[in-house]
Amino acid sequence: MKPAIIVVDMLRDNFKDSPRNPYCQEGKEIIPNLQKLLEEGRKRGFPVIFACDSFLEGDFIFKGKMKVHAIRGTKGAEVIDDLERVPTDIILPKRRFGAFFKTDLDQTLRTLGIDTIVVTGITMEFCVLMTAFEGLCQDFSVILLEDCTASRSKELRKGCLDLYRENILDPLLRIMPLDQFLREVL
Amino acid sequence: MKPAIIVVDMLRDNFKDSPRNPYCQEGKEIIPNLQKLLEEGRKRGFPVIFACDSFLEGDFIFKGKMKVHAIRGTKGAEVIDDLERVPTDIILPKRRFGAFFKTDLDQTLRTLGIDTIVVTGITMEFCVLMTAFEGLCQDFSVILLEDCTASRSKELRKGCLDLYRENILDPLLRIMPLDQFLREVL
Amino acid sequence: MKPAIIVVDMLRDNFKDSPRNPYCQEGKEIIPNLQKLLEEGRKRGFPVIFACDSFLEGDFIFKGKMKVHAIRGTKGAEVIDDLERVPTDIILPKRRFGAFFKTDLDQTLRTLGIDTIVVTGITMEFCVLMTAFEGLCQDFSVILLEDCTASRSKELRKGCLDLYRENILDPLLRIMPLDQFLREVL
Amino acid sequence: MKPAIIVVDMLRDNFKDSPRNPYCQEGKEIIPNLQKLLEEGRKRGFPVIFACDSFLEGDFIFKGKMKVHAIRGTKGAEVIDDLERVPTDIILPKRRFGAFFKTDLDQTLRTLGIDTIVVTGITMEFCVLMTAFEGLCQDFSVILLEDCTASRSKELRKGCLDLYRENILDPLLRIMPLDQFLREVL
Repeated sequence: MKPAIIVVDMLRDNFKDSPRNPYCQEGKEIIPNLQKLLEEGRKRGFPVIFACDSFLEGDFIFKGKMKVHAIRGTKGAEVIDDLERVPTDIILPKRRFGAFFKTDLDQTLRTLGIDTIVVTGITMEFCVLMTAFEGLCQDFSVILLEDCTASRSKELRKGCLDLYRENILDPLLRIMPLDQFLREVL
Repeated sequence: MKPAIIVVDMLRDNFKDSPRNPYCQEGKEIIPNLQKLLEEGRKRGFPVIFACDSFLEGDFIFKGKMKVHAIRGTKGAEVIDDLERVPTDIILPKRRFGAFFKTDLDQTLRTLGIDTIVVTGITMEFCVLMTAFEGLCQDFSVILLEDCTASRSKELRKGCLDLYRENILDPLLRIMPLDQFLREVL
Repeated sequence: MKPAIIVVDMLRDNFKDSPRNPYCQEGKEIIPNLQKLLEEGRKRGFPVIFACDSFLEGDFIFKGKMKVHAIRGTKGAEVIDDLERVPTDIILPKRRFGAFFKTDLDQTLRTLGIDTIVVTGITMEFCVLMTAFEGLCQDFSVILLEDCTASRSKELRKGCLDLYRENILDPLLRIMPLDQFLREVL
Repeated sequence: MKPAIIVVDMLRDNFKDSPRNPYCQEGKEIIPNLQKLLEEGRKRGFPVIFACDSFLEGDFIFKGKMKVHAIRGTKGAEVIDDLERVPTDIILPKRRFGAFFKTDLDQTLRTLGIDTIVVTGITMEFCVLMTAFEGLCQDFSVILLEDCTASRSKELRKGCLDLYRENILDPLLRIMPLDQFLREVL
């Protein structure tokens, strides 16, 4: 297995502390696990990709109830300080849910010889799930690290993961906790 | 609203009657609703797109437990006879889950002036969901017709739909039964 | 070298004999070479892809002077009878100039283990050139077979090829006659 | 006409003064025209996109004779200082020749209501031409500003432009000098 780690949407704008932002509390709880994953992954030379929402104000995606946020070029679209970055990390602005949508991530991963993506971050049932699916479609094996992803509630995260625990694509698509992943790649 | 109807993977190979094929029974139950949708949609001039898995034998997607099926050019990759086709329908072979992945569907829909896609068929938590998400990413509003989609069990379908009943993109992404959709477009 | 042969737009509608169709005469002259290429290529097991314009009547591309032609689903969008097809050939409808644009050709070629595309057909400075460039962008080496391509005049074909005879990408992009290619792969 | 201006690959690494870099002298000659275009375009509110090569060291594109250059994240991949940038400009890193390849430029232009792209920069027969073609394929009208593009020689630029002066897509694809464009949009 030659894995790359994808961290989805751990952005300042998503971690604004506000009673109207349910992602903040849930997202904060996975930070220690993400820190451990990044540290162990970097030791092993796994590429780290921060996939970051990068919207335009006029984007279609804002024509519903979603608040304008993560605007391209603003501080709010940057990775939170709790997650350390190193120069070899790839910062990947993305225009929509998945990290592969209208980006060159597939080509980057093939150029790096990657065969597996480890998908983490928020939100489980949107951007994390879409990144996982897009990766499968691009012929990468996918590992969803369940304790490194969050949604606006634990029920929602669990509800989403439970849909895929047993799936017909296994072992191309697997769900596991961080510890199991680290044991596998040791 | 200028909608197009997308019917996902209602293919012969997915409807082979076998104790090892849980999709067959569940999928059959939505056929009457799909027939009604197609009939009413065609009366109103809505484009109908049959998005059809169209794999190569060597495809990555078959490197897991999934049985080789829906091979490009075979009868098994064709739409089931229970769903009537008319010459104006679009038969769209797709290589992976979603109907937009490496196809020209986005361009076709824009050329036709469509602003909303109505997504139906199987399987809810894979190809149907992915088609819905890809449509959103391509700036189309999405309606998931809950009683026109199936998975390998009703629990799985419901589990998936429940994740999105209340969602932050509303009303860009909506879930409703067939009757409600028909009332809206009358 | 593991090559695939791409034959671009050798379609009935492009070979209608008419004083207003300069492609017909020029295109006919390369048919013997294409026949030889296909015969020799099939002996060696090279995949053959017929990339075929497949337009909608309302397409943007028809908003200029270009006549409506090669409409999806019509006989005019089919490969001419002078070029034999065998069941293993890939018929690839394409929506615009290049064979890779909104198609799954890149994934097909990778799945087949191809590293080089041999590009032929019409028209040199549009669909043939675009297919060659898209192939390069998708990380395939490209061979343009100069005596297997045509434009609406020999001057135009030569003018286009001359731009790339010496190029900075060499040997990723090469121009050669059919005989040289056949000698290389013998 | 609602145009956007695309300036291709006017990057530091391409303007290194060296006897082995024929692009430097030719590229410098178009800078005054580009400055005028940008100034006049900004007055009229036309979006300006700097499309910039942004390669990885291991990229396929470097497996030929082309020197490693314009590496993502380096100064060499930045726009030259002679061209003024303002905060509303779009800096668009691109992985290969064309500005649309694996980028979200098509979606950005549609979101901004653009119907025409004005393509300028270097090199005429590669990245400029490819950007023009990709734009056409994405249903934008294209204007190639002949005195705002360069190649490694004037003959090469002229040879390329001459192929398309009279073309079947007219007026979707047009070639004109800067002055004519400015008169049209006054």
